Amino acid sequence: MVERSSMSQDEKKKKNGDDMKEVLDGLKAEIGKMQRQAFEKGLPVVIIFEGWDTYGMPEKVNRFIRAIDPRGYRLHFTNKPNEYEKDMPFIWPYFVRMPVKGSIAVFDRSWYFRLVDDYYDTEKRSEFEDRMNDARMLEEQHAAEGWVFVKLFLDLGKKELRRRVEKEEKKGVCNSDEVLEGDYADDYDDVQPIWKEVMQATSSQYAPWHIINDEDEDRVMEQVFRTVLDSVRPYLENRGVMPVCQKNGRKGKKSGLEGIDLNRSLDQKDYRKELEDLQDRLKGLQCILKEKERSVVLVFEGWDAAGKGGTIIRLTQELNPRGYRVAPIGAPNDWEKRHHYLWRFYKTMPRIGEMTIFDRSWYGRVLVERVEGFATSDQWCRAYSEINQMEKMMGKAGAITIKFWLEIDEATQLQRFQEREKDPDKQWKISEDDWRNRSRRADYLPAVEEMLERTDTEDAPWVIVPGNDKYYGRVAILKAVVERLEDELD
Amino acid sequence: MVERSSMSQDEKKKKNGDDMKEVLDGLKAEIGKMQRQAFEKGLPVVIIFEGWDTYGMPEKVNRFIRAIDPRGYRLHFTNKPNEYEKDMPFIWPYFVRMPVKGSIAVFDRSWYFRLVDDYYDTEKRSEFEDRMNDARMLEEQHAAEGWVFVKLFLDLGKKELRRRVEKEEKKGVCNSDEVLEGDYADDYDDVQPIWKEVMQATSSQYAPWHIINDEDEDRVMEQVFRTVLDSVRPYLENRGVMPVCQKNGRKGKKSGLEGIDLNRSLDQKDYRKELEDLQDRLKGLQCILKEKERSVVLVFEGWDAAGKGGTIIRLTQELNPRGYRVAPIGAPNDWEKRHHYLWRFYKTMPRIGEMTIFDRSWYGRVLVERVEGFATSDQWCRAYSEINQMEKMMGKAGAITIKFWLEIDEATQLQRFQEREKDPDKQWKISEDDWRNRSRRADYLPAVEEMLERTDTEDAPWVIVPGNDKYYGRVAILKAVVERLEDELD
Repeated sequence: MVERSSMSQDEKKKKNGDDMKEVLDGLKAEIGKMQRQAFEKGLPVVIIFEGWDTYGMPEKVNRFIRAIDPRGYRLHFTNKPNEYEKDMPFIWPYFVRMPVKGSIAVFDRSWYFRLVDDYYDTEKRSEFEDRMNDARMLEEQHAAEGWVFVKLFLDLGKKELRRRVEKEEKKGVCNSDEVLEGDYADDYDDVQPIWKEVMQATSSQYAPWHIINDEDEDRVMEQVFRTVLDSVRPYLENRGVMPVCQKNGRKGKKSGLEGIDLNRSLDQKDYRKELEDLQDRLKGLQCILKEKERSVVLVFEGWDAAGKGGTIIRLTQELNPRGYRVAPIGAPNDWEKRHHYLWRFYKTMPRIGEMTIFDRSWYGRVLVERVEGFATSDQWCRAYSEINQMEKMMGKAGAITIKFWLEIDEATQLQRFQEREKDPDKQWKISEDDWRNRSRRADYLPAVEEMLERTDTEDAPWVIVPGNDKYYGRVAILKAVVERLEDELD
Repeated sequence: MVERSSMSQDEKKKKNGDDMKEVLDGLKAEIGKMQRQAFEKGLPVVIIFEGWDTYGMPEKVNRFIRAIDPRGYRLHFTNKPNEYEKDMPFIWPYFVRMPVKGSIAVFDRSWYFRLVDDYYDTEKRSEFEDRMNDARMLEEQHAAEGWVFVKLFLDLGKKELRRRVEKEEKKGVCNSDEVLEGDYADDYDDVQPIWKEVMQATSSQYAPWHIINDEDEDRVMEQVFRTVLDSVRPYLENRGVMPVCQKNGRKGKKSGLEGIDLNRSLDQKDYRKELEDLQDRLKGLQCILKEKERSVVLVFEGWDAAGKGGTIIRLTQELNPRGYRVAPIGAPNDWEKRHHYLWRFYKTMPRIGEMTIFDRSWYGRVLVERVEGFATSDQWCRAYSEINQMEKMMGKAGAITIKFWLEIDEATQLQRFQEREKDPDKQWKISEDDWRNRSRRADYLPAVEEMLERTDTEDAPWVIVPGNDKYYGRVAILKAVVERLEDELD
């Protein structure tokens, strides 16, 4: 799957300087045109520069970006992760930097440089393999939604690399290059096999690697331009390769929704006592999160008026606001729509020491978006594994995830809707939409059940909570949070 | 202007616990209603918590935010600036965190904490005064555009503060509080005078300080809620105080536009030679920017087809793309429109070591927005000083700013428009709008002249460049950049 571009000696000789200038000018014009077409079509393009060309890379990246309109691209330079990024999953900084629809992201080194460099340093094999998986995941998830990947590897060869490094070092290195890493002139023999493995493992039909093997600067640029054009054009013409959802049969597992006893309740006195005790313990647990290098992700889903908001208010009552955040999720705004649907959730994930409480979540993809037809069947079919992957990655980065489904029956919901309509302070909480959704409960039910079955994982289990009695529901949720945290932080 | 709220002994005694709960519940409901009204009206609100209440602050902030809908606020906690923020002007992290229209930003400590804390540490008087100016500037600029400020100072008094700190420390401090600074129990006598000066100096009609002086938690919350309601309501009812533009007469200074010789030119041979030399020197200068702790802001304005794009391509030809960024500025998008008009420019300013090249800029406020009526006369009248303040602050943070006005005559512009229309590769560069703007040159001219006169400052001078001859214009600009940088970085 890895493609090599290299010219025959004859081809090389044929071109003298003037011819080459003409060729390059023509290609630049085509690249400019391609960019405008991609913009009009809303096609997002990711272009990665990697390779053995330590000192020549900035110049080549510069020649490339100067051929495109600055209105339509962002350049990203990969170096050591910052403090924030260190708290997050390996692929996180790149996921949140994927280009919006219609624009281009150019990576001057990318997640691949990071994973090769770290593996060469640490020799942690399983981390290395996990990260290659994460890279495949990033590309597959985006390719499936229409992102185009052009992965370029510029290889000068060991001898030429050494010659250039020596030449540059004689000239004296520019200060702004101090930060530059990855100058492996002497390490070529050790590192090249790692690159080879990575390229083999991460070349796919929809995101292949292209190795450019040439010593001449202009010819390298010619091949860069041609490769980009050849890679993007099929997608402009709707004949690009994209991953397709392959749905496995459901596990034998039941959602657990049916057997639930909705009538469990708690009297006010017990409720107050238990709540106070749980809030107190939770406060203490929040205190040690950072020390234990963990974070917390809580997801609240459930029927309208099931009590999500009221529970969140009790949950956060004694917490330090510096360490938690409530993220209420509605329909995505225009800017969010220009990204992968998981983008806004990745961006909101907690750092080490923090807690994010999602009032509705990414599960909208397989609930409202599925039922209302905002997502195609291929899209929501893929979502189960995309979501499981995200939650798993967060888990590896230290997140403790618990997901709550608040279940109430239709009679209780009706009663609460009517109460809201009567109370002038609560009228804003209820709208036409709520009544409409209520009438479609039968359509939502299979989606809820499939969600509970397909995304109940060890990393991020679902807890189904009977919510007809508010006191019981709140205490059950706080108890589940506190007990899980006590267990994990012990 | 600083307002003190404190209850009489009688009032205090009147209220027992149950009464208080009822009062607070009522106030919380009103706050919720106020938030919904502010959302509907698109009113942005900034609420600042400062004060002598080290351990009690998180709890009070938490009680406040739990009264409002999480969909409509963001909480910001001020601590030490991060590496990025250290590169930027003092007020920058707060400017970019101002709430969007219709939402609330709550600051758990703010720029005021930073400036008091730093001054107490360093005793740098002039820095301290500059920063108070920056704070006034931030508030005035935002108040003028409709932002509402509620600045709360919670003062327990020295004795009570000491008592609480001792009590908390006996309990053992929560780990998540390790980061907490500003516990001045022992420093009260030294620091309180600084706070007093700051509050006097930064209280204004549209952003007064409110001191809340009470030991009882519930009564503090009551006053917090009441102060917020009293501060925001006038703006909901369109009777809030806002700064108004007071325009000074123009300086005697001329724009310099009239005397310019548009026919200067350069032959191709000299152009090539000079360009190469200048590009080479610029490359070297980029190298030492970081070491010298400076950044570069280049602004390009000028008539359509004056040659901005072509100049930028030559300017960046030999630069390292890791250190520069071209920012092409068009009409603001919907998200940007929900912020202060300078917000998107603050966000794009370069860090130390970097260079940002603005292809059009914030000067749109006093050019296209003025002429086309997108900005009110009060708005563009204020813009001159708002812009001068921003550029001055950037200068203090290390930025070297040069602004270019590319001047061409109408005949040259016509010729270039026609060339663009003929060339299939350049047709996209020209639109109806360009022709329309061209026909309105006489309307734009006074705006251009007033801009050049009012914003030509020592920190950020305008350079007027004759652009009829492209070669001459490009070389003149590169020369101005190189010579200024050589001068500043020497």
